[in-house]
Amino acid sequence: MKLKDIKSPRDIKNLTVDELKSIASEMRRAVLGRCAAVSGHVSPNLGDIEAVIALHYVFDAPVDSIVFDVSHQDFAHKMLTGRVDGFIDPTCYRKIGEYTDPAESPDYDIFYAGHTSPAISLCVGLAKARQLRGDRHDIVAFVGDGALSGGQAFEGLNAGAALHDGLIIVINDNQMAIAENHGGIYDNLRQLRETNGTSDNNIFKAFGYDYTYVRDGNDIASLIEAFRKVKGTRRPVVVHINTQKGLGYVPAERDREAFHWSVPFDIASGLPLDNSDAPDYDTILRDFIMDKAAADSRLLVISSATPDSFGLGPDERRLLADRYIDVAIAEQTAVSVMAGAARGGVKVIYPVVATFLQRAYDQLLEDWAMDNSPALMPVTATGVRGIPDMTHLGFWDMPMITSIPDIVYLAPANAEELKAMLDWGIAQDKYKVAVRVPTYSYEHADYDVDTDYSDLNRFKMLRRGSRVAVIGVGDFLVKGRQLVSALAGAGIDASFINPRFVSGVDGEMLASLKDDHNVVVTIEDGSLEGGFGQRVASALGDTGLKILNFGLAKKYVDRYDVGRLESDNSLDIDTMLARVLAICR
Amino acid sequence: MKLKDIKSPRDIKNLTVDELKSIASEMRRAVLGRCAAVSGHVSPNLGDIEAVIALHYVFDAPVDSIVFDVSHQDFAHKMLTGRVDGFIDPTCYRKIGEYTDPAESPDYDIFYAGHTSPAISLCVGLAKARQLRGDRHDIVAFVGDGALSGGQAFEGLNAGAALHDGLIIVINDNQMAIAENHGGIYDNLRQLRETNGTSDNNIFKAFGYDYTYVRDGNDIASLIEAFRKVKGTRRPVVVHINTQKGLGYVPAERDREAFHWSVPFDIASGLPLDNSDAPDYDTILRDFIMDKAAADSRLLVISSATPDSFGLGPDERRLLADRYIDVAIAEQTAVSVMAGAARGGVKVIYPVVATFLQRAYDQLLEDWAMDNSPALMPVTATGVRGIPDMTHLGFWDMPMITSIPDIVYLAPANAEELKAMLDWGIAQDKYKVAVRVPTYSYEHADYDVDTDYSDLNRFKMLRRGSRVAVIGVGDFLVKGRQLVSALAGAGIDASFINPRFVSGVDGEMLASLKDDHNVVVTIEDGSLEGGFGQRVASALGDTGLKILNFGLAKKYVDRYDVGRLESDNSLDIDTMLARVLAICR
Repeated sequence: MKLKDIKSPRDIKNLTVDELKSIASEMRRAVLGRCAAVSGHVSPNLGDIEAVIALHYVFDAPVDSIVFDVSHQDFAHKMLTGRVDGFIDPTCYRKIGEYTDPAESPDYDIFYAGHTSPAISLCVGLAKARQLRGDRHDIVAFVGDGALSGGQAFEGLNAGAALHDGLIIVINDNQMAIAENHGGIYDNLRQLRETNGTSDNNIFKAFGYDYTYVRDGNDIASLIEAFRKVKGTRRPVVVHINTQKGLGYVPAERDREAFHWSVPFDIASGLPLDNSDAPDYDTILRDFIMDKAAADSRLLVISSATPDSFGLGPDERRLLADRYIDVAIAEQTAVSVMAGAARGGVKVIYPVVATFLQRAYDQLLEDWAMDNSPALMPVTATGVRGIPDMTHLGFWDMPMITSIPDIVYLAPANAEELKAMLDWGIAQDKYKVAVRVPTYSYEHADYDVDTDYSDLNRFKMLRRGSRVAVIGVGDFLVKGRQLVSALAGAGIDASFINPRFVSGVDGEMLASLKDDHNVVVTIEDGSLEGGFGQRVASALGDTGLKILNFGLAKKYVDRYDVGRLESDNSLDIDTMLARVLAICR
Repeated sequence: MKLKDIKSPRDIKNLTVDELKSIASEMRRAVLGRCAAVSGHVSPNLGDIEAVIALHYVFDAPVDSIVFDVSHQDFAHKMLTGRVDGFIDPTCYRKIGEYTDPAESPDYDIFYAGHTSPAISLCVGLAKARQLRGDRHDIVAFVGDGALSGGQAFEGLNAGAALHDGLIIVINDNQMAIAENHGGIYDNLRQLRETNGTSDNNIFKAFGYDYTYVRDGNDIASLIEAFRKVKGTRRPVVVHINTQKGLGYVPAERDREAFHWSVPFDIASGLPLDNSDAPDYDTILRDFIMDKAAADSRLLVISSATPDSFGLGPDERRLLADRYIDVAIAEQTAVSVMAGAARGGVKVIYPVVATFLQRAYDQLLEDWAMDNSPALMPVTATGVRGIPDMTHLGFWDMPMITSIPDIVYLAPANAEELKAMLDWGIAQDKYKVAVRVPTYSYEHADYDVDTDYSDLNRFKMLRRGSRVAVIGVGDFLVKGRQLVSALAGAGIDASFINPRFVSGVDGEMLASLKDDHNVVVTIEDGSLEGGFGQRVASALGDTGLKILNFGLAKKYVDRYDVGRLESDNSLDIDTMLARVLAICR
């Protein structure tokens, strides 16, 4: 049996352990080949190949339910469930996504799963359904050690124990989150590994679980034995397996953080193929953080397990030392730590990836914004050039943050404005400031960038024209400029406005448009619903001015092409121009 | 020393234990007196009096930081920190709120705290600030056992252990959440109580904490001894105290769930003063749940620790039996369990209080709405007649839910429509349905209520007029009707629309208004920013129609008077009429 011939998990049920090992070797090459070609989660998918093979060998999906947490570790699962072409045929690499996806495989992929820590809770739901339907089958959650720090994983452990029914949780302990793990639970996992699972001090037993330890979580025979023992259980059980992240690829074994996820790379050297050092906004953010920290021994930098997303590699973290805290994958806690440290009288920066900030909506509302806790929160990976996976879209940061009172949300349009807004934000002792780090295109300001944003919600008129006013929000200011040019070509001398603030509107400037404008256009790099443009439409509601809001429709999209997404949402200049001209007539 | 003479914690530092006990007795009477008169959290505030006295006796606030989690257990703290009048002088009862409040006491109340589980995370922030500032003082989080089930509490425990610095967490274990506790951790707490804290199986030690147990957490001398031992520690420490919820008031000792929070009651009998059985929407919801469960053995009812909010008392829960799951205070998990059980093929209802749903924004987006998991989520305590405490406002459910794709959010305007929408919602095998349970006034429909809402986003024209169209959203349909009447008095025969759907707009109906209307008015019982009206304004942007959006400004408000809040937000009929007439001219 060769990897390419596997159509379903049934195909491996009669293989010997040696044959399974041979399949594992093939899978390892496939993971590497695909990730090197098109990017991907290298190390997680190398580290759990044996465990996933053993799972599918012992359990009978899709009758048994196997739920991957985060699911950036599901390549072996996809290869065993009818999608091997996505890993061995380069023409199919982009047809199969990184995460479990019911649209790809309704039988084997039960949930979309791109965020960390919900798998146990989802399985509790499956288990209740099983109970009410009177079914009997196994339900398995496959959860990384990194995901255990997310509060929902503990909630799930808590609720799962109370089922008093069969629930199998495999803890894939590769001793890493995206970067290193942080927190008390990881000391306990280490203690369990060091005692071969025998320590009395055992977080899982404290939650009420039966517990089994597998010392070599990359040994298929041991894994099969462990899984067989728990198959059919009527108890909540944890199977704790000790695996090696990146196993079998030397560069990934050496630098597990860099290969958690990688851009396309050269397999022999492990070096990224595109090594351009073109300037980018993320570098501005990193330099800002390091400069401010160098100048202020009381400045705290918070990370929720994704330091590398902000250029805070191991060297930077060593330099920051005590001024750096990684609260692990725990955005709720990160926001509350931000609020607490600010209340404690130090400067705080919490850079965060937009899609993960969704997990802290309540803490933004109840802990940060409500309290007197000025701090700076740069928000990254927003908009159409954020992350194109459906589970990681950065489309909702503006509706989310701008619905909350007392957070100043700024959207810089270029490098100079980003720097100025970060500088202003960290200097505040009054305002709580979030800054939307641009992603769309690297731009320089061709106007005087302000350094003081204390006069809240003051839009900037870049060009005063008439008839049409174009408001380009943040990194879509560049689209505003293009539309203004196109309008000029059609004989309209449009006004051009950079709002800078997305958490409020400049009522005075908007009102001033009434006399010599007929149409106001907003263009934003995010969801229309609850976004900036709708606010402008409301603010201008009593004027009779016509309003056109351009942005993203309320819709999930997955692995999209940026140009296609833009045209689907009328965000290309031709469509915008046509709609403006139509309404002007 | 009498309770009334206490101005600050310094006043109790030199008292004997017997004198402290006497203060505790006075406090107990004060808690009862205030709660009986104006409502309040009876049992939590009776159960921790001794612990709070001992805390303030041993630690030196405000130099030492004492942070209450949820803080519905802070009455003794408030009485010791200059606010005793709020508990012994009936004219001052309403001047002092239920929760810690930096506006009341900037020194002693460090954070607003009305939601469960953030205190440990906030203290981690305070501890990092202390470290960077080079300060030395104690930081104490006071956390109920019920709050431990919230994921953020575990995140906080995890991050707190990694501080390797002084952090004192008092676990106030009264063996109750709002209702009974649920989950594996509560078995561990019981085991610890039963072994007088000596069991090796210890969740706190597993997280890396030092651990002390106080068998009688209502004995001031034992508490003082325990707190003295940990004062000045440089380690993360848990002090687990076993307290009795409702201690000293027989009705509360007997029925701890009913007295968690109570409306005004007669102290002698424990019976509520207002025992009216006027019809209400909550009863409709409860009856709906019980009827559907009686008819379908495969229907799952989920609670996140607040069953009583939906009329699911102990009797109802016994009847529901296996069809009921309380996941504890864990809204993230509740939403994922809803998604999981729906995916597992059963009908699911998850009734939830709006302010607490904020904690599951990410799970709504990533687990429920994204997956194929039709279920019904009634949302309660929304709008101006929801909960008037700043930490519990129900103003953000519409922005939050309607920004998410693929959730149908319905806003019934009266009893008949509520029933119809719940019936339709639970019958769905395609749509994920949320229903905004009305709170404003109990109304009956005077029009034919539809039973089928499959034709999404279809508004209902209740009266076709001209010039002005009034859209009254959900329980503010009644305000819409009043405005239409007032307009009739001013000679305007306005159109009157019940949108029913708040997650989308009826583009066709809105467009049809263009020909014979000049003004469209929306009135909604929630935040304007990101809400329904702004969506309508955007949808009508290209028509030149004038739009007036009425709703709540983006602003925190606390313990407000409803009439005053409405007039502050132009939600009284006179102001609305004047603004409409002004714009019509």
